[in-house]
Amino acid sequence: MRALWLEDRRLSLRDVPTPVPAAGEVLVRVLLAGVCNTDVELTRGYYPFTGVPGHEFVGEFEGARVAGEINASCGDCQACRNGRRTHCERRTVLGIKDRNGAFAMFLTLPRENLHPIPEAIPTDAAVFIEPLAAALEIQEQVRVTRGDRVLVVGDGKLGQLVAQTLALTGCDLLVVGRHERKSEILARRGIRWANAPQGRYDVAVECSGNAQGFDIARRALRPRGTLVMKSTYAGDLTCNASSLVVDEITLVGSRCGPFEKAIALLRDKAVDVRGLIDGVFPLDDAPAAVEAAQRPGALKMLVRCG
Amino acid sequence: MRALWLEDRRLSLRDVPTPVPAAGEVLVRVLLAGVCNTDVELTRGYYPFTGVPGHEFVGEFEGARVAGEINASCGDCQACRNGRRTHCERRTVLGIKDRNGAFAMFLTLPRENLHPIPEAIPTDAAVFIEPLAAALEIQEQVRVTRGDRVLVVGDGKLGQLVAQTLALTGCDLLVVGRHERKSEILARRGIRWANAPQGRYDVAVECSGNAQGFDIARRALRPRGTLVMKSTYAGDLTCNASSLVVDEITLVGSRCGPFEKAIALLRDKAVDVRGLIDGVFPLDDAPAAVEAAQRPGALKMLVRCG
Repeated sequence: MRALWLEDRRLSLRDVPTPVPAAGEVLVRVLLAGVCNTDVELTRGYYPFTGVPGHEFVGEFEGARVAGEINASCGDCQACRNGRRTHCERRTVLGIKDRNGAFAMFLTLPRENLHPIPEAIPTDAAVFIEPLAAALEIQEQVRVTRGDRVLVVGDGKLGQLVAQTLALTGCDLLVVGRHERKSEILARRGIRWANAPQGRYDVAVECSGNAQGFDIARRALRPRGTLVMKSTYAGDLTCNASSLVVDEITLVGSRCGPFEKAIALLRDKAVDVRGLIDGVFPLDDAPAAVEAAQRPGALKMLVRCG
Repeated sequence: MRALWLEDRRLSLRDVPTPVPAAGEVLVRVLLAGVCNTDVELTRGYYPFTGVPGHEFVGEFEGARVAGEINASCGDCQACRNGRRTHCERRTVLGIKDRNGAFAMFLTLPRENLHPIPEAIPTDAAVFIEPLAAALEIQEQVRVTRGDRVLVVGDGKLGQLVAQTLALTGCDLLVVGRHERKSEILARRGIRWANAPQGRYDVAVECSGNAQGFDIARRALRPRGTLVMKSTYAGDLTCNASSLVVDEITLVGSRCGPFEKAIALLRDKAVDVRGLIDGVFPLDDAPAAVEAAQRPGALKMLVRCG
């Protein structure tokens, strides 16, 4: 089958064998896949992955459209037995760790990872289920309620989804970013945007994917505020340890989230994701899609795989 | 009056004017004061304080023994109005920030900061009320219950108090440190000690006062574990941002805590603090007390002020 291949941080198209599902797994035909910033970071050495990248997708299994959770877990380790299956000690992760991903004609995943997509959700919206679930993970970890002052740092594709999900809580929300065009997309949802924080916040969510964004989020917090770290990127974070202690700041790392809730939001049209699509590429142009995703101001690039 | 004086990171004894209490404040005669690691860090430039250091004390006011909360707050700023008085935006902090401290014959504090000391608590135990309250702050922030696997990194004076307060929860507790002598003090309270973590922990508390301790605590956590940062020290912290995100780690900075609860524990003899006293110095030898506190393996040094 045709597939995008990552090796030594370089992307190319290849013909690779169609995967054969292991026990408990199934073969899924990929229809559409999304480029995530993690895919870009993989090409920068964030994680030493060799294989087919891509972990946001809509596929077809037994004639029905499906989304898929990206962590394949053992069910038997301490993390799995304690209900933290996304943290399985022996996990493979679609397109990220020891498992080929979605920028290909087919992928395999455990049957239990698949979620049927309701008819009401168009395919180019359903491809946002995975990143939307990740955005919703914040609310699984941190209580955000009406009137809370919340800052989202970064107005890119992740920041946009995070902002839309947080706005549903009725919190007092501001997104800081660099791109006027993105402020218009947010304005359509009634979400305020600015170039810099205004005052001090109860919760700040780092969605910028760089250390500067972390700094902005940290400085904007009130004492005993919470900083949610949402983006993964190569490189270390440096901060003043004592200031975290003196201000009693809470930092929360946040990764994969609840698919059911993401699907419900899309089904109920509580969020608008199609306005974030900036380009659709055929599979043979997948390297160009990843390239396009890195242009300043770019939002979601999609790859049509089937 | 006689007082220890910190200027340009140097300590010396001086005769300074006896302080005059401002409106709402009172003059307290200092009986006994404790050396905290923060005092040591002040001599290393952790915070640019000039004046009388010292913030752990037992004093006398209107004939009765008192302990005193160290943050003097305005009552009017956003933090104060939201019930976070220890985070007052205009606060002064006894012996740390814009307010002379306890290594002197007298100090001043707002009347409302004082807590009477029950008769059952000897003065050399009561001097631990402030650091014991700080240890208890952890349980105000993080739920620790029976059976939770908890690691305390550092077996110094702070680690000892943190360990004793956490042990009261019935959690599965281990203290890691370097000093066999301190393991004996912990063993008397039935607390386990080792040179290194054993397995993975739900909660890890950094009490070592250095970046290496942070690393040990971080590595010992299970996914979705909580790292409590308890010690203040000069210098930056560097860690891998993505690993915090991928493992969904929570970091919690922790500072001053509830005096009432600390006083109750000492009154009820639920903790033993007198076994941590390593030396008592007269006020004129206060520089030697701070010096002694820095010797490897040293525990609590006290200064007799009145």
